[in-house]
Amino acid sequence: MLAMMLFSGCKQSNETGAAASSSRPEYALVIHGGAGTIRREDMSPEKEAAYTAALNQALDIGEEVLRNGGSAMDAVEAVIVFLEDTPLFNAGKGAVFTNDGRNELDASFMNGATREAGAVAGVTIVKNPIRLARKVMENSVHVMMAGKGAELFAKEQGLDTVPPEYFFTQERWDGLQRAIDRENKSTGALDPAHNDSKFGTVGCVALDKSGNIAAGTSTGGMTNKRYGRVGDAPIIGAGTYADNATCGVSATGHGEFFIRYTVARDIAALMEYKGLSLNEAADMVVNKKLVEAGGEGGVIALDRNGNVAMPFNSAGMYRGYAKPGKREVGIYKE
Amino acid sequence: MLAMMLFSGCKQSNETGAAASSSRPEYALVIHGGAGTIRREDMSPEKEAAYTAALNQALDIGEEVLRNGGSAMDAVEAVIVFLEDTPLFNAGKGAVFTNDGRNELDASFMNGATREAGAVAGVTIVKNPIRLARKVMENSVHVMMAGKGAELFAKEQGLDTVPPEYFFTQERWDGLQRAIDRENKSTGALDPAHNDSKFGTVGCVALDKSGNIAAGTSTGGMTNKRYGRVGDAPIIGAGTYADNATCGVSATGHGEFFIRYTVARDIAALMEYKGLSLNEAADMVVNKKLVEAGGEGGVIALDRNGNVAMPFNSAGMYRGYAKPGKREVGIYKE
Repeated sequence: MLAMMLFSGCKQSNETGAAASSSRPEYALVIHGGAGTIRREDMSPEKEAAYTAALNQALDIGEEVLRNGGSAMDAVEAVIVFLEDTPLFNAGKGAVFTNDGRNELDASFMNGATREAGAVAGVTIVKNPIRLARKVMENSVHVMMAGKGAELFAKEQGLDTVPPEYFFTQERWDGLQRAIDRENKSTGALDPAHNDSKFGTVGCVALDKSGNIAAGTSTGGMTNKRYGRVGDAPIIGAGTYADNATCGVSATGHGEFFIRYTVARDIAALMEYKGLSLNEAADMVVNKKLVEAGGEGGVIALDRNGNVAMPFNSAGMYRGYAKPGKREVGIYKE
Repeated sequence: MLAMMLFSGCKQSNETGAAASSSRPEYALVIHGGAGTIRREDMSPEKEAAYTAALNQALDIGEEVLRNGGSAMDAVEAVIVFLEDTPLFNAGKGAVFTNDGRNELDASFMNGATREAGAVAGVTIVKNPIRLARKVMENSVHVMMAGKGAELFAKEQGLDTVPPEYFFTQERWDGLQRAIDRENKSTGALDPAHNDSKFGTVGCVALDKSGNIAAGTSTGGMTNKRYGRVGDAPIIGAGTYADNATCGVSATGHGEFFIRYTVARDIAALMEYKGLSLNEAADMVVNKKLVEAGGEGGVIALDRNGNVAMPFNSAGMYRGYAKPGKREVGIYKE
């Protein structure tokens, strides 16, 4: 179960070859827990083991749903709720702090069968923002809600709310203090490249037995962020996209670039209009377009044939995928 | 100057043929003031004349900038500031009211030369949200800001702020009361198809003498909206997109569909990856994909050769374009 594979490079971290696409697996599932400057030399063995165990547990949860004939949407929700509840990741419990010491959470959800979508930005009292994003999709006429309005909708929908203190973790608080110190010592400009060393987000894409794809993304945002900044996680087409005809995508990285380059939609568009494979499309966007633009991060993606891609151009990305009889989990590039 | 052309159909409202694309005009400019159930039989001659005059004045303002060698970005900003300040349109002064009687404004801006972008959502005291979107792009490390945080940034940038009452207009207030009455008499569900008969947004795309494209969109949102709903106007790739390599787009319509279908980016992707012309791409998205999905609205778009497209699938769209020696302004489909 903890058979962790360490990948030797970005391209190699994707499945390659025709074998993968020749027959659709019964189900497929791919997850991430954030990308960034995640290096082996900075990680204790205990911490590495904890991340690896959490990624495997997330895959267990998703596989359980899919193996039993559950929908891709149910798998995505169950996996992301688990990742949100796990303080290791910057989403839900474990969210990073804004400049003024708050936790503002964003999430989005998309159903590839219908291209319906839901998203929330800047919520502070919703225990599991991914559940709220799905409720927005399923039970409202809107796609995106923000702030207090989104929280009112969460209460009306009977979702669990928590006092803002629920999201407090000492590690994230210390991260904010370090970021503020760094800022005071430098030019005073907010430098997201030193965002306490990583861009935290969690995401999941699933393909179920019926051939439906769903994708979701959830985040606590950027350490020390100001001005009600909204990143790519709640932006359909940037952080999340799903269409049964092409693929599902969840992104993690320097969100500003992911919005400007409409990353998740671009991968689907390259498949849809240019005929690229999932791997080719994801690789072109992450390792060519984003690299040329200076946009650090990665994506997880999965197509209707169950092919999986997990490219990233940063030092590391917490990631993993599972299909019947097959599983890989990884953290570093090499 | 008030030589208004009444178009005889959606496709005919676009320029057609090779003549338009064979030589790039010195500059080009296209604008919209919202789409929806805008019918000649519902419009008084006075109101029609007022809209036509305002659209022409907006084109005058943009042409003045471009003719004198100003940038596409400056033209877009100047045009949208004028449309925001004109109470006829649902943006800035003249914004519609939320369910709780407030005006929440959204805007976005994109520079096709660099693919830099800026967006704001849910601001209530910023006189010209389009200026704020541009400031976010130019003077912050972020792409999108929301709510109070965005307003704080506006103040720091020295932008004009106004008391929320500035945005009050009797007509929009009456529109909210009608929407609430209609809702009380019906199922209680919020029905955006009867959103006081139109989807108000303003937008502008410009091509300057240097060959740079810029696009911007601004809106007062949806009458009677709840829950901090965010539409497509502040979403890069949905309501606004610009890339010198392909085109600039500003959208107006039922925003939820425009987000799910990443409308502005999709038009550019069809040109970039499938080799469609601007007209073909805009027509496919607006008159095929959105129609099949049930998404009402339209777009204005402009490519690097100065070709202009203004397709819409609703009854009407306030729109117009200008190039040296050429101008058209329209409201209805036929």
